Parts: sequence; C-alpha cells; structure tokens
Amino acid sequence: MPRVSEAHLAARRQQILEAAWRCFARQGFHATSMQDVFAESGLSAGAVYRYFPSKADLVRTTAEGIAGIADDVFLEMLATDPVPPPAAALRRTLVHLTEVTSGDEIDRTKIALHVWAEAVRDTEIRGIVTTIADRLVGRWRQLAERWLEAGHLPPGADPDHVARTMYGVMVGLVIQRHLFGVTTDDYVDGFTALSR
Amino acid sequence: MPRVSEAHLAARRQQILEAAWRCFARQGFHATSMQDVFAESGLSAGAVYRYFPSKADLVRTTAEGIAGIADDVFLEMLATDPVPPPAAALRRTLVHLTEVTSGDEIDRTKIALHVWAEAVRDTEIRGIVTTIADRLVGRWRQLAERWLEAGHLPPGADPDHVARTMYGVMVGLVIQRHLFGVTTDDYVDGFTALSR
Repeated sequence: MPRVSEAHLAARRQQILEAAWRCFARQGFHATSMQDVFAESGLSAGAVYRYFPSKADLVRTTAEGIAGIADDVFLEMLATDPVPPPAAALRRTLVHLTEVTSGDEIDRTKIALHVWAEAVRDTEIRGIVTTIADRLVGRWRQLAERWLEAGHLPPGADPDHVARTMYGVMVGLVIQRHLFGVTTDDYVDGFTALSR
Repeated sequence: MPRVSEAHLAARRQQILEAAWRCFARQGFHATSMQDVFAESGLSAGAVYRYFPSKADLVRTTAEGIAGIADDVFLEMLATDPVPPPAAALRRTLVHLTEVTSGDEIDRTKIALHVWAEAVRDTEIRGIVTTIADRLVGRWRQLAERWLEAGHLPPGADPDHVARTMYGVMVGLVIQRHLFGVTTDDYVDGFTALSR
C-alpha cells in the first residue's frame, strides 16, 4: 500500500475547503449540506469526512486560516520596536488580509458574513466564531498594551476596550468591502484621520 | 363599511413586522418564507400581502426603521453648535440605537446580521442594504464635514472615507454585541481612547 504524502493530504484538504467555500458563497451557509460539498469537490463522502466530519469543522478550519493570516502580521508587529501606532497597525493588518484573501478563487472573508449570521442561532458555530474572535481580539490587546506604554493611548485607557474597537473596525471593513466595494485604502485613510 | 383608523393600520403593520423578526431570528432570513410570516402573525396571506408584498419589503421597512432611529440623533447633532466631536457623536448614536432596539421583544439590529449575509448573494436585498447604508454613511459624512471645519480632523481628511469608517465602527459593535455580548459603553470607551 503506497504511503500518502503530506503534500497530497494538504492538497486534498484544500480542495475540499475550496469546494465548501464555493457552496457557501452560492447558497449561503445554512442551505449548504455536506452532500453539496461531496458533489462540488467531486469526492466521496468517506474522503470528505476523513478531513471534515461536519460543516462546523469546515467553518473552524476556514476561520483558523483567516486568523492565521492576520497572526503573521500581528507577530511581526509585536516583535517590532517601536511598536507601530494604531492607524499603521490597522493598515498593515487589513492590507495583508485583503491581499492574501482576494487572491483566492473565493474570498473566504466573504464566508465570514454567512458564518456570523449562522452564529446568531447556532451555538456550536457561535462557539467557533467566539474562539477565533477572542484570538484576534487578544492580539489587538497585546498591541494596545504596547500603545499604552508608548503613549499612543491616553493613560488609563483599557486595552480590552481598545482591542474590541479595533476588531470592530476590521469587521466593519469586511462587510463594506463585500457589500459596497469599499476599498481597504479608503477605509484605513478614514481611520487614520480619526485616530490620535 | 367602517373606516379603518390610521392607528389600527400602524398596529397591524407592526404586528406583521414583529412576527417576521421572530421568524428571522429563529430560522434565519433565507429559510423564512412568507407562509411562516402568515402563521407567526396569525393573519391571512391577503392581510399580510396588503402591507408587505414580499420578504424584501419586510427587510426594507425594518432597515428604514433602524435608519430612522439613528436619524433622530444625527439630525439633533447636525443642528448643534459646536458639533459634537467623533467619539461623543459615536457614543450618542450607539447609546440611542442600543436603548431603542434592546427594548423590543426581538432586537431588530440582530436581524441585520442575517440580512448582510443574504445581501452577499441576493441583488435585491443588497440594493436595499446599500440604500440604507448610503443614508447612514451620508449622515456621518455631514458630521465629518463639520468635524473638518471644527478642527476635529486633520486638514485634507476626506469626509467620505471618515464616514465609511464611522459606519464600519457601528457595524463592528452590532456584530460583537449580538455574538459576544460586548457592551456599547466598553466599545465606545475603546474608540474614545483611539480617537483624536
């Protein structure tokens, strides 16, 4: 029996994910069944289930992927001295996220809109969304602590609240980019004008 | 034949809207049919269609209602001299919006998450969402023009970009309030710390 290479497993995994993104983009998250994902990927139920036992697993992997893209920039900024101030940090994060995801056949940040809606009603999906949001908010909090030290925030500012706002600003672009065609540059210019 | 009073018509209209919000909150927007709205409202198809010929009409009225709530605050702030600066204006708008909508049996801003997701795929819904967003962004733009005159923004800042960011900050709270229980106060505190 031949050994299946790591690269083959990763490619297969990606093939299934992209099929799921096409289904979600076309039908929405709720109306997509695992059967739709089998058909779209051209793989058997067994082959798909081996990687993703449920729709929730597809969402978790997709969301972790998006968080991972953002994490690359967060880690780089957290390792930088002096720390980039809020507007510069937002620009780096959003430009990188936009560049990586808009190169995909299906922009997976668009899937986020479907997943947020589903999370209102489905506690399992909400749990996944919460975990990923906490991860991103946590990175903004680490940056906010550095901003406080560097004087980019007024003394006594709460890094938790600042982190929630920065996450909200990210979300506000994702929605407007997909629904109204707002560009990352214009949006970040607006934030820059408003920020200290 | 008795004349039907204005008050009766308004009450009937509200009864149908609230039934639709319960359906959307329970099943999501896509999975809710007009038949579900008839059943939930306890009214006949004819009675419902008289007010709302389609799901899109329910969405339009709901979205116009939310914009109307925000408009009360916008008009008041635009009539104020000196104009409230960005963080104060955001606080007034979000506190008012939260107070009015959280008093409803179903918080209709939660429906927005379903409608944004649907707007990704459905061009009619996207048209409605775009119209309402343009109205809110237009109000933020009017405020941004005043902020520019008052020196709350750096010279040369583009009021359009600032308005997009302010709308994005609103959206970022709506999502986090419903999914993660973030409070309006904490969120606006974060924005205040970040803003000029």
